[in-house]
Amino acid sequence: MNLPTDDERSHQRAHLMDGRKLARRLRTELQSQIEIFRTRYGVSPCLVVMLVGEAADSVLYAQNIVTWSQSIGLGCSLVTMPQGAAIDTVVSEVERISVDTSVNGFLVQMPLPAHLSAHTVFEALEPMKDVEGLHPENAGRLLVGKPRFVPTTPLAGLELLDAYGVDLAGKHAVILGRSGVVGKPLAQLLLSRDASVTILHSRSRHIEEHVSRADIVAAAAGRPNLVTGAMVKPGAIVLDFGINFVGSRVVGDVAFDEARELAGMITPVPGGIGPLTNVMLARNVLLAANLQRGAGIEDSQGETE
Amino acid sequence: MNLPTDDERSHQRAHLMDGRKLARRLRTELQSQIEIFRTRYGVSPCLVVMLVGEAADSVLYAQNIVTWSQSIGLGCSLVTMPQGAAIDTVVSEVERISVDTSVNGFLVQMPLPAHLSAHTVFEALEPMKDVEGLHPENAGRLLVGKPRFVPTTPLAGLELLDAYGVDLAGKHAVILGRSGVVGKPLAQLLLSRDASVTILHSRSRHIEEHVSRADIVAAAAGRPNLVTGAMVKPGAIVLDFGINFVGSRVVGDVAFDEARELAGMITPVPGGIGPLTNVMLARNVLLAANLQRGAGIEDSQGETE
Repeated sequence: MNLPTDDERSHQRAHLMDGRKLARRLRTELQSQIEIFRTRYGVSPCLVVMLVGEAADSVLYAQNIVTWSQSIGLGCSLVTMPQGAAIDTVVSEVERISVDTSVNGFLVQMPLPAHLSAHTVFEALEPMKDVEGLHPENAGRLLVGKPRFVPTTPLAGLELLDAYGVDLAGKHAVILGRSGVVGKPLAQLLLSRDASVTILHSRSRHIEEHVSRADIVAAAAGRPNLVTGAMVKPGAIVLDFGINFVGSRVVGDVAFDEARELAGMITPVPGGIGPLTNVMLARNVLLAANLQRGAGIEDSQGETE
Repeated sequence: MNLPTDDERSHQRAHLMDGRKLARRLRTELQSQIEIFRTRYGVSPCLVVMLVGEAADSVLYAQNIVTWSQSIGLGCSLVTMPQGAAIDTVVSEVERISVDTSVNGFLVQMPLPAHLSAHTVFEALEPMKDVEGLHPENAGRLLVGKPRFVPTTPLAGLELLDAYGVDLAGKHAVILGRSGVVGKPLAQLLLSRDASVTILHSRSRHIEEHVSRADIVAAAAGRPNLVTGAMVKPGAIVLDFGINFVGSRVVGDVAFDEARELAGMITPVPGGIGPLTNVMLARNVLLAANLQRGAGIEDSQGETE
C-alpha cells in the first residue's frame, strides 16, 4: 500500500486507509489461490448462503454475496426459506446443508425474522463450515488463541492495519461496541497482537476520555457521530466499522470530516472496512475447503493469522 | 455478607472481601442441592480428575480437589497416568471418560508435562462435561453471551463482587493478565454485567496510568507486587487472583499492605478468591449433571449467570 509519508503522519490531515484498493489486490491473490484449488481437486470451493424471509436489504446483501463469490471463482448458491419458517424447519435445513459434503462453507444471512433465535441457528451449524465464525466453538477458538474461522468484519480491520504497517504491540486500542460479530472478536485479534484493549458499549461512562487516550480507535456501535473529532488523539488510527443510513447517505460511526483533521490514519465509510469483508469471507471459504481436505490451518492458503 | 459501612467506604483502610466466609455459606447451600439431586436420581453427581505425571504440586492439588469434592457429597475419583504418557494415550483416555455415562464432570489437572499440548487435550474433552470451561465451545459460549461452564477462578471473582453488593454497570474494570483461564473469561463476565473493560498484559505500556483510573482492578498476571499501593485509585475495588510462592509465603499480585490503605474493598491472598474456586467447580459439576438429565441452564441449581 502507499504508506503515509512522515509528513502526513506528523500532521495535517489523516492518511486515508483505502479498503477498495487493498480489496482489489487481495482479490487478485485469492482468485489465483482458488484457481489452484480448482485445478488440484477438479472442483471449486463451494459456499451456500441461506436467506430466510424477504426483507429487501437482506435479499440484496445475500444476492450480492452470491454474485461476488461466483465472480471470484467460488461455487456459490442461495437457499431461500419463507419468512414464516418455523425454527425446527430452519434448523433441519441448516443440518442438511451441514452434512452435505459438496458444501464447504455456509452462512445464514442476518438478521433473521424476529421469531427465530440466531443463537439456535448458529449452534446447528457445522463448525467446520461456519465461515463467518459465529458458532460458539469458532468464537472460543479465537478466545483461546487457536483461531479457525474468524468473523469477517474484524478480520478486515486487522488486514487493513497490517497492510498499512501498523505495529500493534503495546498500543492501546479502544473498541466501541461489544457485539459477537465485531467488537468482541476484534478485541481478541488485537490482544493476540499484543495491543492493550479497552471495550466500551452503550452502558459505558466517560467514553470521551477513554477515546481521547487511544492510540487506535475502533468504532463498531452502529451510531453516527459517536466518535467526534474532539475525542481523537492527534495521530491516532481510526477504524470505522459503522454502516448507518442517514437519509440516502451511508455514514460510519465516526464524524469523518472532523476526525480526519486529527487522526494519523482513518478509514472512510464507504470505502474502508466494507469492501474487504467479502474478500475475508471468500478466504474463509477456501480455508474451509482446504481444512476439509485435511490441510492444517498453517498449511492452508486461507490462513487467517 | 457484612457489607462495608459508609465510614469504611469513605475511608480508612479497605474492607476485606472474605472469600473463606462466603465459601462456607455457598458450600452449605450447594451441599443441600447436591443432596436433593442424590435423593431425586439415586446417585451423586460424579467428577473425574485426571492427573498426568507426578509433579508434587499437581498431585497435591488433584488430591485436594478429590477430597474436597467427596466431602461436599460429589462422587469423585482420580485417574492417574504416567509422566511419560504419549499424547495419543492421554487423548484416548480423555475420550473414554468423555463417553462414560457415569461421569458428569471431568477435569485435567494443569500443568501437563511439557511434551503434551493442553489445547489438544481440551479439544478432546466432551464439552458437556468440561466443568472448567476450557473447551473452545465453552469459551465461545461465554463470548457470545450464552455461558454454560465458566472457568472457576473468574467465576469466583464475580461471586465475591456480587456477595459484596458491587454494581458493575458502567464501572471501569482493568484486568492485568490475558490468560484463557482467568483474564479473558473474566473480561467476558464483566462485560456481560455492563462494565467497561480494559485488558492489559506483559506487553502493555503505561500500566500504572491504566490501573490508577480503574474502579475495579483485577490482577491475574502471576507477578508479586505488580499492583502497588500508589497505582490504586482511592476507593477502588481490588481483586487479587495471583497465587505466588515467595519463600514459604503465598502472596498475590497486589502489594496488599499498601493497596489496602487506598482501596475501598480488597481480597486478601490467601483467603480471597482461592477458597471459592472449589465451590465454583462443584457447582459446575452439579450443573453438568442436571444438564445431562435434560434440565435447561436456567432451571438448573448450578446456574452460572
